[in-house]
Amino acid sequence: MTAVKKWLKQPIKGVLLDITGVLYESGEGFGTAIPGSVDAVARLRKAGIPVRFVTNETCATQADVVKKLRHHNFSLSEADIFSPVPAVISILKNQGLVPHILVHPAIELEFKDMVTGTPTCVVIGDADEAFSFANMNAAFRVLKTMEKPKLFALGYGKYYKHKDQLQLDVGAFANALEFACDIKSEVVGKPCLSFFSAALSDIGITPEEAVMIGDDIVSDVGGAQKCGIRGVLVRTGKYTDSCENHPTVKPDFIANNLLEAVDMIIEAHDNTFL
Amino acid sequence: MTAVKKWLKQPIKGVLLDITGVLYESGEGFGTAIPGSVDAVARLRKAGIPVRFVTNETCATQADVVKKLRHHNFSLSEADIFSPVPAVISILKNQGLVPHILVHPAIELEFKDMVTGTPTCVVIGDADEAFSFANMNAAFRVLKTMEKPKLFALGYGKYYKHKDQLQLDVGAFANALEFACDIKSEVVGKPCLSFFSAALSDIGITPEEAVMIGDDIVSDVGGAQKCGIRGVLVRTGKYTDSCENHPTVKPDFIANNLLEAVDMIIEAHDNTFL
Repeated sequence: MTAVKKWLKQPIKGVLLDITGVLYESGEGFGTAIPGSVDAVARLRKAGIPVRFVTNETCATQADVVKKLRHHNFSLSEADIFSPVPAVISILKNQGLVPHILVHPAIELEFKDMVTGTPTCVVIGDADEAFSFANMNAAFRVLKTMEKPKLFALGYGKYYKHKDQLQLDVGAFANALEFACDIKSEVVGKPCLSFFSAALSDIGITPEEAVMIGDDIVSDVGGAQKCGIRGVLVRTGKYTDSCENHPTVKPDFIANNLLEAVDMIIEAHDNTFL
Repeated sequence: MTAVKKWLKQPIKGVLLDITGVLYESGEGFGTAIPGSVDAVARLRKAGIPVRFVTNETCATQADVVKKLRHHNFSLSEADIFSPVPAVISILKNQGLVPHILVHPAIELEFKDMVTGTPTCVVIGDADEAFSFANMNAAFRVLKTMEKPKLFALGYGKYYKHKDQLQLDVGAFANALEFACDIKSEVVGKPCLSFFSAALSDIGITPEEAVMIGDDIVSDVGGAQKCGIRGVLVRTGKYTDSCENHPTVKPDFIANNLLEAVDMIIEAHDNTFL
């Protein structure tokens, strides 16, 4: 067995997929499907391998994500997606918290019933252009009014590719607030254990039986590996050469794209279940 | 001798003063002089105690700072001020670096002869409103082009008071870039040893002979103390009650304002030199 295929030795009973940079590249309108990705998801379905989509996407509602992906002919439903917004809303409700939100305008409405009265926490998502100096200061000032400032970060990415350029992700701006307030964020999203776990228990498999495929060496690959899930890096999306020399994260495998990774998984799956 | 005056036991041969929040509060136009501060500086001069102004101010040129302070009748010249911009320009020249700048529009011209050709470093100052999402991304992308990204931060404050509100300082935004690029800033300004040292050697005294008075518990008081300088916190500017319970920094003394601190220093100075 070659070193390349060593990661396939353990049976694969489910696949977790990142969305942006793996299925499609974001951009104007619906963005662009990454060549082979639609086919890759279809092949997983056909092979009977359960798939869940584990994304830190907070620039669109889950409904809009599904709409966008279906436009490209991806086969999925909202129930297949695990994303930070429904997760944080459930946490806020359970803990009876009133959020001040610094999020993308596209998801503000999701919080409309919760933003009532004096905030008791701040929720920061990938706000994109809404990461203005004024909005950052507003969130900061709300945190400074709290005896124990509580900050939820919807994901903790460093950067991602948008319209062919790298741009700063929520983790960077969360760090700014953390430094200013001497606090740490509570991350809701990748790379958190609870986030990957929710997707695994939905499939009904253990971490050792799963593979996570993503373009983020830290959030996708490193996050999954910390949970005991094999992590595959794809050379699409925000991938840059330097990802292959990351100081702490070594992917179980690096594939040129999703289709290449999936073909190998299906081959291994067929052999395992023969 | 009371505990309060214990910090005065060692002779005081020079005083370092922060500017914003100690001499005056920033705001529209020239801002507002803090009551008693003009008199305090005049008393130090009259008592023959050398004074230097050690500031992280990067929203105005040194010439404009002097103009502003003279408007309020403070007695000082540009040569008395130690601020990050001249310091970083000297570093850039010595190291032959070409900066990409993310600074306040008011000081951009100071760098005009240096911003030529492909940047080999990024300089981030308190850019205020210029901390836009677009400008943060531009700085980030420049750093990502470098094999070993080099980031100079002009100071490293968490926040300060501006127009009666707290607002995020350069340290917060430097942290965002640091996190995104996996780097650490090279700080030029308080709380760096080299910065305090330059002011001390200009007076010709040792750290033990000096007192630093500021409204920033970390950059002013903590920074000075790390250099062996006594640190006095004033209850003006960005001061809030929580500063008195800082987890790691304990000021040598807390004065209600600059005048109160200076009066005590002059009394001790007179007794020491009688």
